[in-house]
Amino acid sequence: MNLTDKINQLKELKSELYKKDFLLTWEKSDEDLKMVLEVADILKEMRSQNISPRVFDTGLAISNFRDNSTRTRFSYASAANLLGLAVQDLDEQKSQIAHGETVRETANMISFLSDFIGIRDDMFLGEGNKYMREVGDALDEGFAKGVLPERPGIVNLQCDQDHPTQSMADLLHLQKEYGSLENLKGKKIVMSWAYSPSYGKPLSVPQGIIGLMSRFGMDIELAYPEGYDLIPEIVDMAGKNAKASGGSFKVSHDMKEAMKGADIVYPKSWAPFHIMQERTKLLQAGDKAGLDALEQTCLANNAKYKDWEYDHDKMKVTKNEDALYMHCLPADISGVSCKEGEVNADVFEKYRIKTYHEAGFKPYIIAAMMFTNKFQNPAATLKQIMDSQKKRVLY
Amino acid sequence: MNLTDKINQLKELKSELYKKDFLLTWEKSDEDLKMVLEVADILKEMRSQNISPRVFDTGLAISNFRDNSTRTRFSYASAANLLGLAVQDLDEQKSQIAHGETVRETANMISFLSDFIGIRDDMFLGEGNKYMREVGDALDEGFAKGVLPERPGIVNLQCDQDHPTQSMADLLHLQKEYGSLENLKGKKIVMSWAYSPSYGKPLSVPQGIIGLMSRFGMDIELAYPEGYDLIPEIVDMAGKNAKASGGSFKVSHDMKEAMKGADIVYPKSWAPFHIMQERTKLLQAGDKAGLDALEQTCLANNAKYKDWEYDHDKMKVTKNEDALYMHCLPADISGVSCKEGEVNADVFEKYRIKTYHEAGFKPYIIAAMMFTNKFQNPAATLKQIMDSQKKRVLY
Amino acid sequence: MNLTDKINQLKELKSELYKKDFLLTWEKSDEDLKMVLEVADILKEMRSQNISPRVFDTGLAISNFRDNSTRTRFSYASAANLLGLAVQDLDEQKSQIAHGETVRETANMISFLSDFIGIRDDMFLGEGNKYMREVGDALDEGFAKGVLPERPGIVNLQCDQDHPTQSMADLLHLQKEYGSLENLKGKKIVMSWAYSPSYGKPLSVPQGIIGLMSRFGMDIELAYPEGYDLIPEIVDMAGKNAKASGGSFKVSHDMKEAMKGADIVYPKSWAPFHIMQERTKLLQAGDKAGLDALEQTCLANNAKYKDWEYDHDKMKVTKNEDALYMHCLPADISGVSCKEGEVNADVFEKYRIKTYHEAGFKPYIIAAMMFTNKFQNPAATLKQIMDSQKKRVLY
Repeated sequence: MNLTDKINQLKELKSELYKKDFLLTWEKSDEDLKMVLEVADILKEMRSQNISPRVFDTGLAISNFRDNSTRTRFSYASAANLLGLAVQDLDEQKSQIAHGETVRETANMISFLSDFIGIRDDMFLGEGNKYMREVGDALDEGFAKGVLPERPGIVNLQCDQDHPTQSMADLLHLQKEYGSLENLKGKKIVMSWAYSPSYGKPLSVPQGIIGLMSRFGMDIELAYPEGYDLIPEIVDMAGKNAKASGGSFKVSHDMKEAMKGADIVYPKSWAPFHIMQERTKLLQAGDKAGLDALEQTCLANNAKYKDWEYDHDKMKVTKNEDALYMHCLPADISGVSCKEGEVNADVFEKYRIKTYHEAGFKPYIIAAMMFTNKFQNPAATLKQIMDSQKKRVLY
Repeated sequence: MNLTDKINQLKELKSELYKKDFLLTWEKSDEDLKMVLEVADILKEMRSQNISPRVFDTGLAISNFRDNSTRTRFSYASAANLLGLAVQDLDEQKSQIAHGETVRETANMISFLSDFIGIRDDMFLGEGNKYMREVGDALDEGFAKGVLPERPGIVNLQCDQDHPTQSMADLLHLQKEYGSLENLKGKKIVMSWAYSPSYGKPLSVPQGIIGLMSRFGMDIELAYPEGYDLIPEIVDMAGKNAKASGGSFKVSHDMKEAMKGADIVYPKSWAPFHIMQERTKLLQAGDKAGLDALEQTCLANNAKYKDWEYDHDKMKVTKNEDALYMHCLPADISGVSCKEGEVNADVFEKYRIKTYHEAGFKPYIIAAMMFTNKFQNPAATLKQIMDSQKKRVLY
Repeated sequence: MNLTDKINQLKELKSELYKKDFLLTWEKSDEDLKMVLEVADILKEMRSQNISPRVFDTGLAISNFRDNSTRTRFSYASAANLLGLAVQDLDEQKSQIAHGETVRETANMISFLSDFIGIRDDMFLGEGNKYMREVGDALDEGFAKGVLPERPGIVNLQCDQDHPTQSMADLLHLQKEYGSLENLKGKKIVMSWAYSPSYGKPLSVPQGIIGLMSRFGMDIELAYPEGYDLIPEIVDMAGKNAKASGGSFKVSHDMKEAMKGADIVYPKSWAPFHIMQERTKLLQAGDKAGLDALEQTCLANNAKYKDWEYDHDKMKVTKNEDALYMHCLPADISGVSCKEGEVNADVFEKYRIKTYHEAGFKPYIIAAMMFTNKFQNPAATLKQIMDSQKKRVLY
């Protein structure tokens, strides 16, 4: 389908993304999600055809990374740049924020001429998403009181609950792999815990995956060793989603059993919910010794499950011995990035380029989230861009 | 008044800002200051009307923060971006500057394609402003000798003497609050020391305020506990300014007494002048033990003045019990950002949104300083921008 | 010669820079080098005439500095900005790269919407240039497999072998000083080791200079104390180059003797090749004690050659007592940036402004490397820019 046809099709979607933050996929309607996917796809196609979808002459996209990032940082920077915004990092080390400044004040101080704020805050259960909402409330107040000329949109770049730019990029990848969202119906996807020698990995990726993929009629299996639970409310929600969309949802505790007949597998390590809760308490109490002890306990516990590696043996039981392997990257690859890890090196290599394609959708997903926040009628604006015939590489 | 009228009015101002650095408000004529205020106001209005005042297709604005900053860093980035410049940080940790490089060399090395350099250097008395002038001299030489195609303008983002982007934003806030600069005549403004549990805060804000506000016929009262003097030359100058402009200037040592009948109050902590002198010597000597001892002495001394908190009791004696509260932010708010601080939490809350508005002028003040440095006839250039009908959000 | 004539002359050059990384000058043909010099000169002239050579509406230039930099960092940022690209730093401390990520993965993750990657990696012999090629191979694969919409170009911002943006800027400086490349024939240039109180300076500058300058018929003399060898293969190549281009190449071990009759001198410290080899091994083994011991040995050895300072005495034996002094900056200036160093303070001062001019070519050299990588027919594109009449300062 050519770009003009794709843009015309958008008109039929009734989304409500305009001037709304993108914090959790499960706060968005199916039409909202489809709109983001389609706009992302169109922006990607525009760029590949050297059409510049720049919609801002000037403007700032603030990034606030409270945890490390390469992929998401670059995706955010790419999305901002594609639309014409300059990235300004809020570096809480370089700033005066440690001097007892409140969230609501900082939120306004960084927003006088800003169009978006992207936030990663995934370290503490119960905190990250809450922080984003506090920022949002502060921006609402600032805008209402005339402090801010516009209300900057917030993009969740990973919190304690969800990683929507990741899960939406993953979904766009699946849409491309299977031809349509419709074709995902009845496909079996296994979101599985996998062994990692590291500790304290966020729950947001597996939660984001089950929270989103359960809405498209897929058969979801969430597999993990006993004790490695996710946030119960999100697991419950995924179960209900699956049922409502005509799919199914199952929790199990044997990696190989889970993989049987899978169309899609997503083996990825995470920390157990109760450990993350404990960790949050210890961090808040500043209990260094307690944290060290918890880390040792947790690593020792992880080590019991070194056989939760996605290897040939498990791949062989998947559909046609060739389930689509997915990962948010970087994966802990046995013998490559660590001694023993989430995935066998040969298996990873087989799907490596596909994981790169998967990652490549993220900049456009973020750009689409920004675009649909800023323009009430994305189809009309995209049409204007087409008509402008502005090139990205000018000559 | 609409934008075109505002721009037309500018033509009557005889300013001499073109190709001049903005280092101290007291080096600028009244017409210069008015020009900056008016251009800032126009740029703010343009942006709110979605007119893009971008004047550079490409170009760099260098930032050199030798001390922490959030508000000013973002204001500078916003100003640069609004005019079309990309910010490039000179991070003296990441650079090779520690390897014995001279100021004049670095000044040229970062300026081959740069339009502005914004500098914060407020740690050492007698150093910050001097450093800016050394940079300026180096740029003059570089330009004269053909090393630089243009002479980048320098914007003082806070030095040991003045904080002109702050005081000018504060002045624009007052102009807006009272309708005109003319209306400030006869108003009583109290620049008061206030208690803070921290140590070593720069003198530049109170100095900047008395140095600038004394030029508009206001009655200035500078209140602080005995010993917390500012740089004597600047206090003398403020006194002379006040007299010349038809206002008055008074130094006093009782916070509540000072507040009586005040129209405007600015309660803000700073370190005593003689302590800052001592501190500069110890820092230069690398005397760690001496510095620690000085800090303890100073904090102990501060603690004698915990009653220098701006609270209900003091607010009650101001004009109509409702003097306009100002602060450069972040304030030390008792019970919020610290146990005991500069201002009572309820009093701060009453004026909180006004302090956000106050802060919101800074990006435009900086943009106006850049604009007037770069264009000899700001009214004409602003008119061209209006005529271009270029939008900031393009669609 | 005016810009249009300069652009017309370009048409006669048969360069093969299109879609090629710029990693080593000795991989490029003479026509390639001339093309870069001429395009750099044209871009510099355009900017001085307020013509905007912006060729990208949006796009990213990634910088990956694995060692400190001020000059090259700002030159890269300036070049990117001039062409319309935003710089995005890959900060390996802030990223998740330490978590066992492979080079090829990161190379793709940062490149989905990137046009260029500039890399400095000069710490380890045998590593830096190799790393750049690994990145390049990963980008080739990503592009071939459809992961990347375009293959970003790589610019070597200093490696273990060469510092091509420096040596090419130096060459453009010489071309300007002497009127043409042709006029460099028969000139004597002395690349000399000089004393520095620091340790471990890369070999890439002297190697880059002898590797490049030997191609234009100059008489090269490489002077250093016994033991301070460079990489033998590069020295051999320089010798062959010199011969082939009608010049000569000589290695000697007496600074003053070497300077006799020199037209151009480049006194600059470096670490001995065998020490760098030893150091690389110790670093890879994580042998902290061994590294400290090596540093002490090396500094002690350096100290034997404090008379390798470029001073009046040595300047007096050069051609007309006034050889052109060159340095990549910052120089270790005796009594200024260190007690005893590479160059006498008065001698440096005499040529200081010339070294600034020398440095000022680097941003344009980098921009020219980007330009010629991106556009197959630079003359045609430059002509289009001229025709567009787009200004850099818009009003």
